[in-house]
Amino acid sequence: MSRTPPHPTRDQIELPMVLDCLGDPTRLAIVCNLARHDQAATELRCGDFNALSGKSNLAYHFAKLREAGLVQTRIVGTTRYMKLRRGDLDARFPGLMDAIITSAARDADRPQFPECEVVEAG
Amino acid sequence: MSRTPPHPTRDQIELPMVLDCLGDPTRLAIVCNLARHDQAATELRCGDFNALSGKSNLAYHFAKLREAGLVQTRIVGTTRYMKLRRGDLDARFPGLMDAIITSAARDADRPQFPECEVVEAG
Repeated sequence: MSRTPPHPTRDQIELPMVLDCLGDPTRLAIVCNLARHDQAATELRCGDFNALSGKSNLAYHFAKLREAGLVQTRIVGTTRYMKLRRGDLDARFPGLMDAIITSAARDADRPQFPECEVVEAG
Repeated sequence: MSRTPPHPTRDQIELPMVLDCLGDPTRLAIVCNLARHDQAATELRCGDFNALSGKSNLAYHFAKLREAGLVQTRIVGTTRYMKLRRGDLDARFPGLMDAIITSAARDADRPQFPECEVVEAG
């Protein structure tokens, strides 16, 4: 059984909050990784991002992403599963996520982007 | 005669810094107004934005926009003239500014966006 922490509805997702949230390089890297896995309709586990930052730091970033409406989170036991809210984001801000993810991928070798080795869920 | 404060080069403009900068509703409103006037290739004066916020607060926002590479500023006497760096931004992040400006325009009636009555330069 899974439980779901509070999320903003599609209409409650606000542009400044989304931009502010993605202004952090760690959160931008998390979103780019989720976007890459989104095409396979896979959820990622919070533990898949352990290479990016410390655990408590990551928990803070995951909460910020959820509160801004960027990710959908469900909790099973002690594990958090996350998915990018691609449909909601594309409906609210057409073309925005595509432009951000493409630009981030082009700049992925810059020092501002933390390396992220995502471990596939087993 | 005009003088020019320091600006990042096109290549020094970084995605997280641009997103972080536009995560502030006042700076987002300034950029949307500059974009609207950009089509007429007009520069706006800092005083044109006085309806948005207090003077010292605006000076802080203008500096943040310049440092992030979003605006080109030149100073003539005590007046700052600003232009959106549309060419540089479109070259670095294709489609990003369009998506942000279109989304902001769609959401312009939301309380998160400060009303901005831009006074045309005489």
